[in-house]
Amino acid sequence: MTTLEKTIRAISALDATASAQAAERQAQLTKPAGSLGLLEDISIQVAGITGKLDPPLDKKHVVVMAGDHGVTAEGVSAFPAEVTPQMVYNFLNNGAAINALARHVGANVTVVDMGIAAPIESDAPNFLDRKIAPGTQNIAVGAAMSREQARQAIETGIAVVEHLRVTDGLNLLITGDMGIGNTTPSSAIAATFTGLSPSEATGRGTGIDDDGLQRKIAVIERALAANQPDPADPLGVLAKVGGFEIGGIAGLILGAAAHRIPVIVDGFISTAGALIAAGLAPAAKNYMFSGHKSVEVGHRAMLAHLGLTPLLDLHFRLGEGTGAVLAAFLVESAVRALNDIATFAEAAVSEKK
Amino acid sequence: MTTLEKTIRAISALDATASAQAAERQAQLTKPAGSLGLLEDISIQVAGITGKLDPPLDKKHVVVMAGDHGVTAEGVSAFPAEVTPQMVYNFLNNGAAINALARHVGANVTVVDMGIAAPIESDAPNFLDRKIAPGTQNIAVGAAMSREQARQAIETGIAVVEHLRVTDGLNLLITGDMGIGNTTPSSAIAATFTGLSPSEATGRGTGIDDDGLQRKIAVIERALAANQPDPADPLGVLAKVGGFEIGGIAGLILGAAAHRIPVIVDGFISTAGALIAAGLAPAAKNYMFSGHKSVEVGHRAMLAHLGLTPLLDLHFRLGEGTGAVLAAFLVESAVRALNDIATFAEAAVSEKK
Repeated sequence: MTTLEKTIRAISALDATASAQAAERQAQLTKPAGSLGLLEDISIQVAGITGKLDPPLDKKHVVVMAGDHGVTAEGVSAFPAEVTPQMVYNFLNNGAAINALARHVGANVTVVDMGIAAPIESDAPNFLDRKIAPGTQNIAVGAAMSREQARQAIETGIAVVEHLRVTDGLNLLITGDMGIGNTTPSSAIAATFTGLSPSEATGRGTGIDDDGLQRKIAVIERALAANQPDPADPLGVLAKVGGFEIGGIAGLILGAAAHRIPVIVDGFISTAGALIAAGLAPAAKNYMFSGHKSVEVGHRAMLAHLGLTPLLDLHFRLGEGTGAVLAAFLVESAVRALNDIATFAEAAVSEKK
Repeated sequence: MTTLEKTIRAISALDATASAQAAERQAQLTKPAGSLGLLEDISIQVAGITGKLDPPLDKKHVVVMAGDHGVTAEGVSAFPAEVTPQMVYNFLNNGAAINALARHVGANVTVVDMGIAAPIESDAPNFLDRKIAPGTQNIAVGAAMSREQARQAIETGIAVVEHLRVTDGLNLLITGDMGIGNTTPSSAIAATFTGLSPSEATGRGTGIDDDGLQRKIAVIERALAANQPDPADPLGVLAKVGGFEIGGIAGLILGAAAHRIPVIVDGFISTAGALIAAGLAPAAKNYMFSGHKSVEVGHRAMLAHLGLTPLLDLHFRLGEGTGAVLAAFLVESAVRALNDIATFAEAAVSEKK
């Protein structure tokens, strides 16, 4: 049995007893029932994931999966491909948005080279060289990668979860991405799983203009026609129209779910990874939170397909894990509310008439 | 000149130079322009408010304004009026939702008796006895309070800002409320300023059933008919259909704006206070953030009237400042992002093609 198969088998249902205990406690807290909305739902889901009403959430890790995309040759991005390695160095120098926000949230940032075109020279302890190939092939004309490479990408994500568990400990995982061009494979994946047309699933990414958007939609139409991805074969979808970092994110989610660790999925690219993960292991959906709603069109349909409600809607379109890392604060808040609010009995407050 | 008039005169325009500097820096940071969405807008507004790109935000105070409402005699709430003082003791014992969340955010909680029906016995240092009267009169049959009491309520809020500035320091203010029955005056205020009908402005509060909702709408129709509040006279609106805690919140907002302190307005009741404040001093709107979108119908129209975008939408319907205190974390995050992300030049990252 492969690591991927073993991991999928290890993903089980939530702990219904712990969820029920959390729901029962929510009803006893000094507030109108349900008045903390999504925060109540989060606390109940975290209990189901971890089996505990007050699990530690102090070991928070953002993993930024980075890779390049052959499809950038088609002119689908507003930024040149050289920005992928430049931003990786920026992450490793603590200069990017994800670094600033992770620091504020109290999360660590790990950067993984899943398939950047250029070599990355760094001995930073939070850099992991797991390069599968120097960028994917151009999906407009053929498959992004081999089926074996797709499996390798997912298993790399699973292995990163193991690495973080062993080296630092891990109790809240936050997914992130970097890869110029990666909204294009993500839109192709979104269209494949949700049934959206390429024009419905395609947005402006880092900021292309109207002509660029039409070109990008045409590229995705060509990619789907050339590759014929089948949503019943998620590994095949990743191989045909995916990206190495998207496979890595799918692996992060599966690895976290197998270890009963809550995972906060970032925006458009991370949700493409989540579609692959949920396609392989539908039970993994219960371990996911959606960090935020991206500006990218198509994201809403992806979240609906997964049954996820985004915790934030700050009009982000950045990736890196920036939306999800802010949502980590809300997940922590939810657990604190469940545990730290007094009950009606403790506080001698009258209940509803 | 009264304290209220002096305070209104002290509220000036935002610092356009500081805002422009913040916007210019945002454009130089290593991310696509605009990709941090509302977080960028917040950082620019905070710069305009404070005159600084990196103002201290370490002195965060939630002020929970508490008061009772004669209109509860009409059966408009799911909870008995005795819950107002019970919850005040719960706040002072650190047992309520606002305590749990404020602790997590690093904010202090101050509780003000603006007009609770029962006497509150407490020598807690964070309790302020500023009782104007033991509850308002029943707005279904006449004015909630005298015009002089309305002014006194607002000036009390202004004085609380002064108190916090002098005793602990204050650089981020978060409004909160407690008062069984207080969605009823808030709906009446919302209808007065936005033009919504009573049925469009009235929700279920802490959880009344269908019959209760119809009764509540009828009470608000009677209140508007009996009092004829005029939106051109905001002090009169407060006196006729308001509440002591709502006036206190209006005062908090005016006091913060006069001192160029950002203020995060909580949900439905706090936004009713914001409508009074903005009616008296339109320039105060620039100093406000909307912490979250409440479940209460009518809140959306109130926010639109004020030109505010809610930072969170967690389906809360609790009050106390719970939504706003979580949003404080986002305001801090916005300032950290503006200051801590490297520029394209610093990080040697290529800009848009």
